[in-house]
Amino acid sequence: MTILGIDPGFAIVGWGVISTDGTKHKAVAYGAVTTPAHSPMEARLLAVFRELEQIIEKYRPDVMSVEELFFNTNITTGIRVAEARGVIIMCAEKHGVAVREYTPLQVKQAVVGYGRAEKSQVISMVTRILGLGTPPKPDDTADALALAVCHAHAAPSRLASYYDRKDG
Amino acid sequence: MTILGIDPGFAIVGWGVISTDGTKHKAVAYGAVTTPAHSPMEARLLAVFRELEQIIEKYRPDVMSVEELFFNTNITTGIRVAEARGVIIMCAEKHGVAVREYTPLQVKQAVVGYGRAEKSQVISMVTRILGLGTPPKPDDTADALALAVCHAHAAPSRLASYYDRKDG
Repeated sequence: MTILGIDPGFAIVGWGVISTDGTKHKAVAYGAVTTPAHSPMEARLLAVFRELEQIIEKYRPDVMSVEELFFNTNITTGIRVAEARGVIIMCAEKHGVAVREYTPLQVKQAVVGYGRAEKSQVISMVTRILGLGTPPKPDDTADALALAVCHAHAAPSRLASYYDRKDG
Repeated sequence: MTILGIDPGFAIVGWGVISTDGTKHKAVAYGAVTTPAHSPMEARLLAVFRELEQIIEKYRPDVMSVEELFFNTNITTGIRVAEARGVIIMCAEKHGVAVREYTPLQVKQAVVGYGRAEKSQVISMVTRILGLGTPPKPDDTADALALAVCHAHAAPSRLASYYDRKDG
């Protein structure tokens, strides 16, 4: 299975593609889409859409694992991140890529084993799990890879609980 | 000038196309895009994107006039409306349609002449200004036409202030 992790944003979109057999995970490619700071929002969103289409066409992921949004900080920034996130999940659907959402808590739990882990712990665990020589930069890219790993860990147990429900 | 007014949403997107010579405005076409209630958000967003592309290709508007978002009500709904709005303005940019934003206050001011006007007043004024036999339904469609009328009213004065600035 190939998983595309996405850390949504309108200035920087972190992305990371991993392949997994269910137990071993390998980084395929990762990076960040950045958009020009002083261009209108609609132009930034189109840039995100176009770059994401290229990434999806190139790596053909089965699933996009994307962060669920909460507004606990700046609400104006929050609206703009949500606008970008809308473009991102629509783009996945347009290319037949299933969308799965995880909260930051779920990501930390899956990657570090502890829901209140620090950002630095998440980054160092992702680096180790994927056998990368150096931590991915920027942090958005590391977060995206963490989302991909989170889905890789969640997918088998989700399948298990699906069968449990069917049996039960 | 042809203006596409949009009342953004993920369940219903009101839209209305008007043509204007700066003083007289005529309704060209209007309606609402609705998305199936129990489908995943990404599928609803793709439906919005696809229908909007058809509307833009058919009516070739010069400008999209779209409501600016505020989160004063339900924040979860707000996030989803923002996601849809992101798809909508990205779609405009993709097709070379300029995006202009107006607050509900600006729309009421432009259409009724009073920023605290009731929704029903906005609808009846839009119906009268565009010479429609009956009020457009649903309300989302009437709101979209109000946004288009708002831009038609704002555009000449914006142009004037632009030349004022250039002269000054």
